[in-house]
Amino acid sequence: MKKSRGIIVGRFQPVHNGHIQIIRNVLEEIDELIIAIGSAQLSHTPKNPFTAGERVTMVKEALNEININPNSYYIIPIPDISNHSLWASHVKTLTPSFNKVYSGNPLVQRLFIENNYEVTTPPLYNRTEYSGREIRNKMINDEKWDILVPNTTYKFIREIDGINRIKDLSQKEINEL
Amino acid sequence: MKKSRGIIVGRFQPVHNGHIQIIRNVLEEIDELIIAIGSAQLSHTPKNPFTAGERVTMVKEALNEININPNSYYIIPIPDISNHSLWASHVKTLTPSFNKVYSGNPLVQRLFIENNYEVTTPPLYNRTEYSGREIRNKMINDEKWDILVPNTTYKFIREIDGINRIKDLSQKEINEL
Amino acid sequence: MKKSRGIIVGRFQPVHNGHIQIIRNVLEEIDELIIAIGSAQLSHTPKNPFTAGERVTMVKEALNEININPNSYYIIPIPDISNHSLWASHVKTLTPSFNKVYSGNPLVQRLFIENNYEVTTPPLYNRTEYSGREIRNKMINDEKWDILVPNTTYKFIREIDGINRIKDLSQKEINEL
Amino acid sequence: MKKSRGIIVGRFQPVHNGHIQIIRNVLEEIDELIIAIGSAQLSHTPKNPFTAGERVTMVKEALNEININPNSYYIIPIPDISNHSLWASHVKTLTPSFNKVYSGNPLVQRLFIENNYEVTTPPLYNRTEYSGREIRNKMINDEKWDILVPNTTYKFIREIDGINRIKDLSQKEINEL
Amino acid sequence: MKKSRGIIVGRFQPVHNGHIQIIRNVLEEIDELIIAIGSAQLSHTPKNPFTAGERVTMVKEALNEININPNSYYIIPIPDISNHSLWASHVKTLTPSFNKVYSGNPLVQRLFIENNYEVTTPPLYNRTEYSGREIRNKMINDEKWDILVPNTTYKFIREIDGINRIKDLSQKEINEL
Amino acid sequence: MKKSRGIIVGRFQPVHNGHIQIIRNVLEEIDELIIAIGSAQLSHTPKNPFTAGERVTMVKEALNEININPNSYYIIPIPDISNHSLWASHVKTLTPSFNKVYSGNPLVQRLFIENNYEVTTPPLYNRTEYSGREIRNKMINDEKWDILVPNTTYKFIREIDGINRIKDLSQKEINEL
Repeated sequence: MKKSRGIIVGRFQPVHNGHIQIIRNVLEEIDELIIAIGSAQLSHTPKNPFTAGERVTMVKEALNEININPNSYYIIPIPDISNHSLWASHVKTLTPSFNKVYSGNPLVQRLFIENNYEVTTPPLYNRTEYSGREIRNKMINDEKWDILVPNTTYKFIREIDGINRIKDLSQKEINEL
Repeated sequence: MKKSRGIIVGRFQPVHNGHIQIIRNVLEEIDELIIAIGSAQLSHTPKNPFTAGERVTMVKEALNEININPNSYYIIPIPDISNHSLWASHVKTLTPSFNKVYSGNPLVQRLFIENNYEVTTPPLYNRTEYSGREIRNKMINDEKWDILVPNTTYKFIREIDGINRIKDLSQKEINEL
Repeated sequence: MKKSRGIIVGRFQPVHNGHIQIIRNVLEEIDELIIAIGSAQLSHTPKNPFTAGERVTMVKEALNEININPNSYYIIPIPDISNHSLWASHVKTLTPSFNKVYSGNPLVQRLFIENNYEVTTPPLYNRTEYSGREIRNKMINDEKWDILVPNTTYKFIREIDGINRIKDLSQKEINEL
Repeated sequence: MKKSRGIIVGRFQPVHNGHIQIIRNVLEEIDELIIAIGSAQLSHTPKNPFTAGERVTMVKEALNEININPNSYYIIPIPDISNHSLWASHVKTLTPSFNKVYSGNPLVQRLFIENNYEVTTPPLYNRTEYSGREIRNKMINDEKWDILVPNTTYKFIREIDGINRIKDLSQKEINEL
Repeated sequence: MKKSRGIIVGRFQPVHNGHIQIIRNVLEEIDELIIAIGSAQLSHTPKNPFTAGERVTMVKEALNEININPNSYYIIPIPDISNHSLWASHVKTLTPSFNKVYSGNPLVQRLFIENNYEVTTPPLYNRTEYSGREIRNKMINDEKWDILVPNTTYKFIREIDGINRIKDLSQKEINEL
Repeated sequence: MKKSRGIIVGRFQPVHNGHIQIIRNVLEEIDELIIAIGSAQLSHTPKNPFTAGERVTMVKEALNEININPNSYYIIPIPDISNHSLWASHVKTLTPSFNKVYSGNPLVQRLFIENNYEVTTPPLYNRTEYSGREIRNKMINDEKWDILVPNTTYKFIREIDGINRIKDLSQKEINEL
């Protein structure tokens, strides 16, 4: 029987429990999932502090942490492409073939629908709390964020000195030469 | 006798009656007009919802609608170039040779003037009403916009489901994964 | 009734009688034809001596020369894109929608077929004689080439000093600093 | 104890038994291996017929075929970068951190060595037989190539009509418009 | 004895007395200084009005004005690179080798530190007054700015009609076609 | 009196005595010379082994070696640009203004002439001997090349292990994975 394969796209800046919840839920519906790491070429910006490689590591470790079958997913970095109308074709080129798209983002939904893909809004989770932006803000303000992300993500970010990186990137550039 | 040829540059997101009025007026002064479709590489963004090909179609149909001589103009998509100081040379490379520039935009004027072109501000029209941004906003808010654009443009946008595309693109990305 | 619209892709370095013959033949089968000018970003190389704008001019003048209805075609420059598997989507983005592709080039055929387009090999002409490369070689060697191209093309190339441009570009770079 | 992680880089056009042999051997020396798919942006050219996504699929299936532990490797597409002297940093940005490089290619070796990586030439295999170029040539000439690649690779290439793609791409462009 | 060589990075839009003060101070500590002109590909934007070539000229003339030894510095334009994590390697590729970085910008500091460079915050100057943005604003508002920049810079900007360029660029694009 | 400023363009892979001879000769005719380092983005290829920064260093040291006035020249790296017809504008953007071009290369000559620059063929030297390609070949074959380049260039290339770099780059990629 032919395997069913889906895709989700996220920036994972950083990985958080909302991501993991979606991936776990989606994997109950299909055989294999492509986890596409969007804006892969970006890093060291306030909204995109982590490199693609760091994000691959965080996703992989988080899925191992909850014993997801490593043969059930692919983690693929996807650089942006200037022309949005080519983006869905660009994703297709970089990934194994898939027939279902899971996304709650209206732009992503539209781009795949205009390319004749079936698109599903993944089950909801608490998006106010589980949000990359919120977590980055908590890091900057020395608030508690460890419970919002997988243990391995928390540990990884500390190991690479990620909190200071985010704090440095958040500084107004008052000192620009 | 040598033909006079001019150029106007617009993004045509979407084509509106102001564009058509200018093109008609300018064509009374010169033999041929290059209609340059700016930011051609962009589409599916809030400010640039339509592809270059869709914009070419809208311009062409609108000019046919009012029986402009099809031998009096060229419609040429122009992608952006990162370095502004190369932009005028870039336009020159992609288009038939021209000796007059029609633009009311100070940046466009300056870039052509610094490249020794003669620049004319085209006759005014009601820019508050005939504005791409205003028309896109009316679409989002379900206000009346059909009288601001050529009939063929209205019909075309409906055919390609353009209103929903613009609405989707305008949504705050609250659902970003 | 819905118009039928097709596309052909050529580099037109320079326009020659073979191009014109194909365009004329194809226009007997369909209502409108998109004439895509490939490798639009290239010029001033031995294989691509003319700019996109110069090629637009040559095509337009050649079609006027034989009184092709100017409402039956679009001339659109198409820059290359590094990823071949995105090329057909890229062409689609830059042009009015089309449903038939005319090409004798196996790569172009394949790229459109893999994107679910109907592809037709256009009627043959004498490709040994009518070839951009052959014509450029004749220019370099001061052989007769005027009968291979439309009159307007011949005149245009002389006007822009195109023969010397091609000769300069063909020189071995023995003088490289 | 800290895991040891290495990297190998290949174009995998297509995957062949030499690749698999090296991966298997290297995995005996280290805990985890990054399998970098080079020139990821290329496809549909004579030397690079397969997309990055197709190559990811072939590598993954081939490693499953011989029961390699799926937690022991990462498969990461790496697009080219125009400046060679940035290439090693570029690879580093897209991948989990690594401390050993396995490569027999003098350029790859040099670029990593100049960036202070430890580089090892992987154990040899029969490179005359197991060569992407040789296998592509055999496909073009209808010679036997199935024994040179994993079973899953052979099956996959047939499924996507890969042999005809390679034959089409190999044709001299005699029919160029 | 080995020469010590440092680098500072600025956009120099335009050169001002704060830049010159830093360069002078830093040159007391080291033998040679690379003056890197950042965002070299930008010009004719509100924040980046001057071309790289104009900025090279302003820096050179300002240093001659105060008799800095012309053998003690290099002026090198550095275009941006989309991936921040490659930026330090990119700078390294375009410049003579250096071992000290002078920067007060947290992002620049971090990018060089993550690449194992020694980074020093250069001695402070009055950053409220000596700021490219402040000076551009004064030009737009016809306020006094000549005392904030070297004499040669003032003269150069007047010669190239720089004030009107900045005024044109600052206009809201109300006239966009 | 207005200064006269010229430009020469070279790749300097590596600097050799022919370059230095031309620079010295040209500097007798004009006040200032821009030494443009072409293909600045390339390095670590057989034809372009050295980075832009290494080439800046070699040029600077060679001119100091013969006591050329450091206020009489600018050394500016120029990356390539895909569109040849924009190249002269691109060079203009990155350099101080100039009014004379010195080049023996027919393409460079043509591109500047089409942009209305005055172009002069610099005085001849022995191009068979003083040629970047010849010198790189001699390095590969362990022939004598030191007398063809300035002393400082010879010393610099040895310091950065340049000969082995060139040898590595020249190897047929027989070991490609």
